Order: sequence, then structure tokens, then C-alpha cells
Amino acid sequence: MGPVNQTAPSARTTVRRLPDRADYERARVEAVLDEGLVCHVGFVTADGTPAVVPTTYARIDDHLVIHGSPASRMLRSLKDGLDVCVVVTLVDGMVLARSTFHHSMNYRSVVVYGRATEITDLEDKRAALDCLVEHLVPGRTDHARGPNEKELRSTLVLRLPLDEASAKVRTGPPVDDAEDMDLPVWAGVVPVGVAVGAPAPDPDTGPEATVPTHVAGWRRGPVVVAD
Amino acid sequence: MGPVNQTAPSARTTVRRLPDRADYERARVEAVLDEGLVCHVGFVTADGTPAVVPTTYARIDDHLVIHGSPASRMLRSLKDGLDVCVVVTLVDGMVLARSTFHHSMNYRSVVVYGRATEITDLEDKRAALDCLVEHLVPGRTDHARGPNEKELRSTLVLRLPLDEASAKVRTGPPVDDAEDMDLPVWAGVVPVGVAVGAPAPDPDTGPEATVPTHVAGWRRGPVVVAD
Repeated sequence: MGPVNQTAPSARTTVRRLPDRADYERARVEAVLDEGLVCHVGFVTADGTPAVVPTTYARIDDHLVIHGSPASRMLRSLKDGLDVCVVVTLVDGMVLARSTFHHSMNYRSVVVYGRATEITDLEDKRAALDCLVEHLVPGRTDHARGPNEKELRSTLVLRLPLDEASAKVRTGPPVDDAEDMDLPVWAGVVPVGVAVGAPAPDPDTGPEATVPTHVAGWRRGPVVVAD
Repeated sequence: MGPVNQTAPSARTTVRRLPDRADYERARVEAVLDEGLVCHVGFVTADGTPAVVPTTYARIDDHLVIHGSPASRMLRSLKDGLDVCVVVTLVDGMVLARSTFHHSMNYRSVVVYGRATEITDLEDKRAALDCLVEHLVPGRTDHARGPNEKELRSTLVLRLPLDEASAKVRTGPPVDDAEDMDLPVWAGVVPVGVAVGAPAPDPDTGPEATVPTHVAGWRRGPVVVAD
């Protein structure tokens, strides 16, 4: 059930709670990051209090990139080398045990600690922004108009190394106490995934426009099918 | 498209980036919290660095509750009144514009700032734990065995007031620049929601056990249907 454990890349990436759920293998970390749509970026504000901001991201090789307006308080703070903690969480199932105590979720999460730096070179920025779009909608950059220089200059892009990243994973059925196994309670897992609806064309396009393959075929993560 | 704005409950809950997406109405905050499965809890560790931990939660009236093992570093830190920032994010759609620059997501998120306190009274704890299960799987507490005293004593439950909470929402089609409107690029929204798979019974139950209604009918959020 639990993944094979390796050595954590640092003290703070060592999973302390439920360490059998830890996975320090880079392939697992990358797979979770590549599947997620949103990350949660945690940092400490100037007054010493915590802040968490949800945002899109992409993985480029051994870095995460995030972007936004140069007016963003978060990005302005982070580009000066503030410590950051980024988490991506994928929910895979509701785990229903015979006792409420042993209810759980199947999930895969990744935490990344580090310090971000700004990507300033315009061509590096363009490549990173393309990756951000491709991460969310593969194939999109072949269709949509790419960024012009004004747009590149009005976007702040940060990269965060994946040197300090670890994953935490729960899979499988519920684990009940032995004395509860004969209770007349249905136990098992309700799989959860990302549902995708029929693409809704922009009203200004008109419904007659053909939906391209990269839109019609958009999916995310394992296919989850009802009965 | 944007929600009606009211007054933010505090300076730090005032949405600064894209303020037209802010919604300070309590009903909106509660609806997002009641739909989410996972929150991301941000806090500042003893060494001054940020930490973010994903966890389940429930809303009970005007509080959030979270729970876990008394060995949890996060819960032990928070119960001493540390500042916390909790975020719940729901992704509603991929927003595909004619330019990559205007790509976006439709989402609803809530941020809560505050300080948590521990629920120590055993009956209050029992009620909170029931709410945590009911939040995730409505109807479940009528079926599963509830917590015994040992389980109650080995669970740490914290409550966080919703006094400082705000929502941020994006809905609707992409917003492109006027000069891009005639580009031959499909633009629109791919709706995203929570997919629910067929319940997988615990191997120890046997597949013949009837799936109860609260399991078979488990859904989350708006129904998103493909073509």
C-alpha cells in the first residue's frame, strides 16, 4: 500500500506524521506536480503572520514556476528571496471505514520548500509562460496568440527549485480495528477525480465554432467512472 | 459576472489583487467552505519559516474545525494560539482566451485568518468529529460506529472563528483584448468539477454487501457533464 521510502532531501521535507505515507522519489513528486491544477503558496508576511495564496503553476524540469502581475503582493514578496512553502494536493478518494475514527482520504500531495528567484530574461519568461499554459491545457500554445513584449514585461515570473520537495500518499481501502470488522457497516472507497464538462464557447465566438481537439479532449488525472 | 462587494471584515481579508473578484458576504464564504473537501493551513514555524499543511475540515456555524493526532506538529503549534491562514479553493473551469496572456481559471476560494483554540470538552469534541465526518460524507454518522472515549481522547480538535474570512470568485467566459476578438482561435470555458467513481467495497466486506444510499449517492459541488 505505502510507497517505498527513500531519504528525504532535508530535515523539513522529512514527513513526521504517518511517515509510511512519505515518498521522496523524484518521479512521484514530479507526477503529482504535473497532474495538479492549483498550488497553495505559503509565506510569512512583513508583519510576521502567515499567508497562503492559491495560484496556477507549472513544473519546468527541476523547478516550479508561478506568475502573475507585478502588483501582486505575494510575488513581490517572494522575488526578494523569502522562504516559501508550496503545496499541491490531489484528492483520489473518500475512505469510509466501519468506525468514524478511521475515516480518511486517499490523496497525493507534494510540499516544496525553498526560495524563489525572478526570471527576467524575456525569452526565458516567454518559455516559462508557455509552460504555464501547456501545463494547464496541453496543446494550447499552438492555437492561442502568444505573449507580446508588452505582456511579457507586465508579467512577473518566479522559479522555485525542487531541491527540497517530498510527496505524501495514501492509497487503498480503509484500515479498521479488528473488533470492528464484523459490524454491519459498508466500508470501502468512493473514488474521486476531476470531472470535465462540455466546453462552453465564448458567447462572442458563436456556438458554431468547431471545438478543437486539445479542448474537446481535455482531461486531468486518472479517469474516474460511475457505475 | 463579479459578485456584489461588501466591506471586508479586516485589513488583511481585503482582496487587493483583482478586487472585483472579492466577496465578503458570509453566505458566499459558507457555501465555499461547505463544498470543499480539503483546506490548506498556513502557519509560521518556530524557526520563522512558513509551513502549509493540507487537511480535512468542517464548518460548524461560525467556526472551522480541524482535527488530527495530538502528535501532529501543526495542531500542537496552532492550539497555542499561533496565527493561522486557512485557504479552501474550488476549481470550476479552465478559461481559454484567444491570447495566452488572458488565460485564467474559474474558481471560488476562501481565506480565513485567525487563531485557533482547542476543543477539550469530550461531548463538544464528539459533536465536532461528527461534523467533520458529516461534512465529507453526509449521512455517514448514522451508519458508522462513532468515537469511543479512547478515540476522543486521542484526537486533537481545534476551532477557528470565521470572523476574518473572505471569498474570491471568478466566473464567466474569457475576457480578451478587443484587437484579438477576430483571431481564429476557439475561446471559451471547459467546466471542471468533482468526478465520482463507483464505490469500491473493502475487500474484507465482499462485493455482495449492498451499497447504502449515502455512499451510492455521494456527490460534491455542481454537476459537470460531458457532451
